[in-house]
Amino acid sequence: MMDDIAVDIGGTQLRAGLYPAEGIEPRVLRTIPTQGGEPAIERLYSLIASIWPDDSGVRRIALGAPGALNPVTGITYQIPNIPNWNGLHLKELVENRFNVEVRLGNDANLAALGEWKYGAGVGHHNLIYLTVSTGLGGGIIVDDRLLVGANGLAAEVGHITVLPDGPMCGCGFRGHLEAISSGTGIANYVKRELAAGRSSLLTQDEEPVSARTIARAAGLGDELSIEAFNIGGTFLGRAIADLAHLFNPTIVILGGSVTKAGDLLMDPVKKALKETVISPMYLEDFTLTTAALGDRVGLVGALALARS
Amino acid sequence: MMDDIAVDIGGTQLRAGLYPAEGIEPRVLRTIPTQGGEPAIERLYSLIASIWPDDSGVRRIALGAPGALNPVTGITYQIPNIPNWNGLHLKELVENRFNVEVRLGNDANLAALGEWKYGAGVGHHNLIYLTVSTGLGGGIIVDDRLLVGANGLAAEVGHITVLPDGPMCGCGFRGHLEAISSGTGIANYVKRELAAGRSSLLTQDEEPVSARTIARAAGLGDELSIEAFNIGGTFLGRAIADLAHLFNPTIVILGGSVTKAGDLLMDPVKKALKETVISPMYLEDFTLTTAALGDRVGLVGALALARS
Repeated sequence: MMDDIAVDIGGTQLRAGLYPAEGIEPRVLRTIPTQGGEPAIERLYSLIASIWPDDSGVRRIALGAPGALNPVTGITYQIPNIPNWNGLHLKELVENRFNVEVRLGNDANLAALGEWKYGAGVGHHNLIYLTVSTGLGGGIIVDDRLLVGANGLAAEVGHITVLPDGPMCGCGFRGHLEAISSGTGIANYVKRELAAGRSSLLTQDEEPVSARTIARAAGLGDELSIEAFNIGGTFLGRAIADLAHLFNPTIVILGGSVTKAGDLLMDPVKKALKETVISPMYLEDFTLTTAALGDRVGLVGALALARS
Repeated sequence: MMDDIAVDIGGTQLRAGLYPAEGIEPRVLRTIPTQGGEPAIERLYSLIASIWPDDSGVRRIALGAPGALNPVTGITYQIPNIPNWNGLHLKELVENRFNVEVRLGNDANLAALGEWKYGAGVGHHNLIYLTVSTGLGGGIIVDDRLLVGANGLAAEVGHITVLPDGPMCGCGFRGHLEAISSGTGIANYVKRELAAGRSSLLTQDEEPVSARTIARAAGLGDELSIEAFNIGGTFLGRAIADLAHLFNPTIVILGGSVTKAGDLLMDPVKKALKETVISPMYLEDFTLTTAALGDRVGLVGALALARS
């Protein structure tokens, strides 16, 4: 039997798993820092070589990475914290090095693939996955196929404009969903209000303002913190309505660290979604749920790509 | 050789064509009013029967209709100006009547299919078609397949929220793209400004305020009219950027009566699109153009469905 290798390329760590033909439990799993003495590409080669099986062949290597890349050509563009991969022919390089087929995908896209094949979305044919963490990304399954678009740039859900002239997004434009509903967006709202003189339990907190500390303060009844999640959740719910109008999915899955806030986020999301869809037909046979794969989603998403 | 029958079901007229296996020129073409002595379904039966060929068989009938319908089940919901088709098993009824396979599709979706197979989008694999007229609808091709979603409700591009708390849409919600960038939206902007006391050449016009009369006044230098198209076009261009972020198409085709305004609409669309995309990569190998099929798009779209 042939194994597959799945690699989760992150800004701070590279993680690789060796997987048998069935199941999502790796035979071997290894993690190393992305940065070190050697260039990231050499570290990637070493990591893959270090888990290469002695007892079987490797059918395929699938690589998941954040940022801009083209899954068709296998070229990476802007990968966070790996500056010299702009224009890198990553797929071709790894193929030449190991002499097996290599596939490449955006991490949020692959997370959608992973949740669809092995997580909360099993059995669905039209699915939207949104990851709400520092940023806000997503992946979309249309009729059992991952939506990548002409150049692999599709499903950039974080960068749809939901409030013209709204807060600044990390990408340099204003009013994007990510600028309001991501962890960063929620924290920036609180910071702006604090700077304007609003009182809050957060000013007594010794930790910096983040989605996590805001959620904690909200749990203690802090009005500003509850308001921040209400706004973030409301815009997220409206965006999900827009995505429902465009894709008519049967399931929307929310993942990412900010979903750990639970109902504090989900209640305004559900309320806004229900209030914003143009017809109740969109919410018939429809599920809004949280992700099932947790921290494994990066590797399992790449594994799903290897097996697709 | 077998022929196909394509039918364009409109609120005011029913139009049907008999098509040979090749080309988009009908052998027979007939148009009748939608309303009359008999119910619309009986008029549809008569129309189809009246163009049925004596010299060949019919392979398939494809029906295009505006409004809400489910192409999978073949059931119609809200069809403008045909009140008693809510919940009608249209596909099944026509199949039982004529004993041939029947297919059903939303008119804007089919227009996308028609432009893709026989119009401005030939050769593209990822395409967005937007029709800007009284309303604003669309159709989306993803990897050579029409996006219909789980229940045929996808691609409702007119009802994405582009300006929270913005003007009222025909559907009863505020701030939708249709409420700002459709012909109705552009006319409503002018009407609101006139009611607020703005001066304009339009107050001297003997015809009612519409996208057509506004375009004419804009051509004469009327400031309010130019402004109205600027706003409609700008929001349309921003929405196209959002759709590019989601679908990464290689072509966006604009059809519908409002596109007859030409550069008055297209200039602000192009400007806003260019200013709003998060990366110039979205506009590489990308075309923004107007539809090629004109008034034939309804029938040719249904024909494309019959042949797909």
